[in-house]
Amino acid sequence: MHFVAALDRVPGMRCVLALFEGVATGAADGYARMTDRPAATLLHCGPGLANGLAHLHNARRARVPMVNIVGDLPVSHRELGPPLTMDIESLARSVSNWTKTVTQAEDVGAVAASAVQSARVGAGSISTLILPSDTCWGGDGREHGALDVAAPGRVDRLAVAAIAKVLRSGEPVVLMLGNRALRREALSHAQRVADATGARLFGETFNTRVTRGADQPPVARMPYGVAEALEALAGVKHVVLVGAAAPVSFFAYPGRPGRLYPPDAAVHTLSGADQDCEEALAALAAELKCDRAQRSRALNSDRPEPARGVPGPSTLGRSLAALLPEGAVVIDEGVTYATAMFNSTFSARPHDWLQPGGGAIGDGMPMATGAAIGAPGRRIVSLEADGSAMYGIQSLWTQARENLDVTTVVLANRKYAILMHELEKVGAKAGATAKNMLDIGNPNIDFVAMARGMGVDGVRVETMEEFNDVFVAANSRKGPFLIELLVE
Amino acid sequence: MHFVAALDRVPGMRCVLALFEGVATGAADGYARMTDRPAATLLHCGPGLANGLAHLHNARRARVPMVNIVGDLPVSHRELGPPLTMDIESLARSVSNWTKTVTQAEDVGAVAASAVQSARVGAGSISTLILPSDTCWGGDGREHGALDVAAPGRVDRLAVAAIAKVLRSGEPVVLMLGNRALRREALSHAQRVADATGARLFGETFNTRVTRGADQPPVARMPYGVAEALEALAGVKHVVLVGAAAPVSFFAYPGRPGRLYPPDAAVHTLSGADQDCEEALAALAAELKCDRAQRSRALNSDRPEPARGVPGPSTLGRSLAALLPEGAVVIDEGVTYATAMFNSTFSARPHDWLQPGGGAIGDGMPMATGAAIGAPGRRIVSLEADGSAMYGIQSLWTQARENLDVTTVVLANRKYAILMHELEKVGAKAGATAKNMLDIGNPNIDFVAMARGMGVDGVRVETMEEFNDVFVAANSRKGPFLIELLVE
Repeated sequence: MHFVAALDRVPGMRCVLALFEGVATGAADGYARMTDRPAATLLHCGPGLANGLAHLHNARRARVPMVNIVGDLPVSHRELGPPLTMDIESLARSVSNWTKTVTQAEDVGAVAASAVQSARVGAGSISTLILPSDTCWGGDGREHGALDVAAPGRVDRLAVAAIAKVLRSGEPVVLMLGNRALRREALSHAQRVADATGARLFGETFNTRVTRGADQPPVARMPYGVAEALEALAGVKHVVLVGAAAPVSFFAYPGRPGRLYPPDAAVHTLSGADQDCEEALAALAAELKCDRAQRSRALNSDRPEPARGVPGPSTLGRSLAALLPEGAVVIDEGVTYATAMFNSTFSARPHDWLQPGGGAIGDGMPMATGAAIGAPGRRIVSLEADGSAMYGIQSLWTQARENLDVTTVVLANRKYAILMHELEKVGAKAGATAKNMLDIGNPNIDFVAMARGMGVDGVRVETMEEFNDVFVAANSRKGPFLIELLVE
Repeated sequence: MHFVAALDRVPGMRCVLALFEGVATGAADGYARMTDRPAATLLHCGPGLANGLAHLHNARRARVPMVNIVGDLPVSHRELGPPLTMDIESLARSVSNWTKTVTQAEDVGAVAASAVQSARVGAGSISTLILPSDTCWGGDGREHGALDVAAPGRVDRLAVAAIAKVLRSGEPVVLMLGNRALRREALSHAQRVADATGARLFGETFNTRVTRGADQPPVARMPYGVAEALEALAGVKHVVLVGAAAPVSFFAYPGRPGRLYPPDAAVHTLSGADQDCEEALAALAAELKCDRAQRSRALNSDRPEPARGVPGPSTLGRSLAALLPEGAVVIDEGVTYATAMFNSTFSARPHDWLQPGGGAIGDGMPMATGAAIGAPGRRIVSLEADGSAMYGIQSLWTQARENLDVTTVVLANRKYAILMHELEKVGAKAGATAKNMLDIGNPNIDFVAMARGMGVDGVRVETMEEFNDVFVAANSRKGPFLIELLVE
């Protein structure tokens, strides 16, 4: 409460209210992805942290900077066991790279500076600072200036030389790009390497932020499906990691491998996510003597016409390719629609593409909310499966309150389609009860009514023609809008 | 997925789908409170458990039985670090009394039986069973019969004798009743003791389930406010615990005590929550030679007329006293309205009163959902503050899907009133930013639109006259209904 009251005493604070902690933590993730700076969340005691935990997990996996402040009971009061007593440190550590509980008011300033410093190491990480409430009244605080942020780890010149040699060998090589390796400058170096050597470029299955569109290299994602991923990497002899992890499958399946690259492929690390991926790729391109002139390939110039007819993955993908506005920030929690939407939009106007990172569902709408705050003037396009939408639906209220430029497209197929696929993939047979557990069409959810209930206008559409018109109109207005797109 | 598929292979499974894990865990709590039997939740990996964690904390504090099944990745796949890798055991242990990860298919049956057995010890506790997915395909399972449930701890005859002596001393005594001590039979014994000795009866501030109404002893709750609680217990020389904890304040405040009973009062335990509270109270009444005839006091016969005019805590309390239907199950997450509503309804028709237990917000609507499943034929009255309502609003969809007899009353004051009070109580001064963080009226939430979006009909009312009519009508229909009551 003292912390809340103090918000007025420090100029320049931008305070954004969320109706549920999962919205706040997901929004902080989205903000960090667009600014490369940490947002701070303020969470209330153990339950508040617990409610935000799933999206903190996602943010940690996405390697973004974030500082969480968790208010707690004074230590002396915790000992009495009041209702809110929880093991906050254990919860915090499960999703944080840095966790500390301050117990003296005079230490808060210095430790907070250290939390921010830690969050900004490398691409970013999660700091969680636990503040028992008596640190607000147990003495005088001391201000503390910002601490220096460590520069990203330097490029390993030996790795550069070794990987250049691999690339010159003529053997099939894949560059797996993650995190900052998927930004504009890094990608231009990666493309030069690919052009010069024939190496193929892949992003991970879930990417923090990819700079994409007609003027960018068409970097494929690792397919989510095991069969498709194995096929994509068949015959590869070398996997070179640049800010990415070696590709493994999302789930495990009976009799299927977990690693998605051939058992005889060698894995090389050019740069970890905490090193400077852009510099590493530039060094590799220099080592290989790739110059700008080698970048000959015409990039994606085949922007299609918007699709007509029945909404589905490919028609929606085509309309997105045609109609995404310049500078759009796409938040992709399209689940079973994600692959087609991503693969259809290489030729769209320049945009960024963000995906929740750790498999925790419902992060899309919160992330869209924070991305809008971090990228004012750009249109946020939040592509959201209906099942996932119901996890963080409260995000719409914050979007209305802050008048954020977010177009939410709810892909309403009225079922947990991804789980139906997974059920099939593990070879399980679903009876009536199991099928019922995967059906969210009884009753149908009216997302337009839900949105209006939170101050966001919206409309339901059933054809691509309607979608195209509404999508363009939504993207050219100020503030949020929701489109419920009925799909199969 | 195999677990889901298996739901059809075992007759008698009642499977209920929730759109968010916090709804599932809160519903399991509500079910357990009405049946004294554990429900099982099925949660997906670390993020699914994380999303349900806050309400598991509440359930643990309320000492209800529950079994959670958390699906996880196979151990061999976890080692590869795919996105969903989390420290599930740490999360589970933070809210569970029993946690175990099974790794062999053949062990699942026996360990699951043990999870259920553990959940049923005493009043109840939380068991969490983690099932890596390869336990579904890594060999043949073995069925295992139910294990015997330990009887509740026996009454401590020495404690009974000592406490009887205290009660005969003439010094001021309070009986603090918790959990099963607040059910009908236990309460009748407690009232006989009170009648015979002048001891006063209190429930805790948050109670698992109180049997109340015109034919029941009017047991007060410990006030939430520290000043009111200290006043209630001023001069008390003995606090006798019966399934309750010694009263401490919910939050800590500068210069205020954490314990709510006088420093010179002695605390005696008649019965822990895991002992048989009813038998302990019966033994105490017998030791004191209280007989039925001593129960002379006329109970609550002064049922009021419904209130008219402006909705507020006292008018709403009066209308609830007048109009609660026979056998109602009240779920109270009224926050700043809770005290007045509780204190006004002693004379209502016989009903049960349930309150979330651990201070985690948003558990009311989930709990109402599960209570309805556990108490078919009874009307659930879910009294819900608007700020809390937005935590578990997805509950309405499950209520519609299962056609549950729940009347939700959203108390829409469009602010976090409790936080405004807390801000004042710690002596912090709120400026414009802080006040804005406590205001949820920009934009106003239209709960009727939200409800309709999830298949629940509803209406907004602004006067007590309107409320009275709509409340009676809602309670006499089949299935769920939502009333948004605009209040100050």
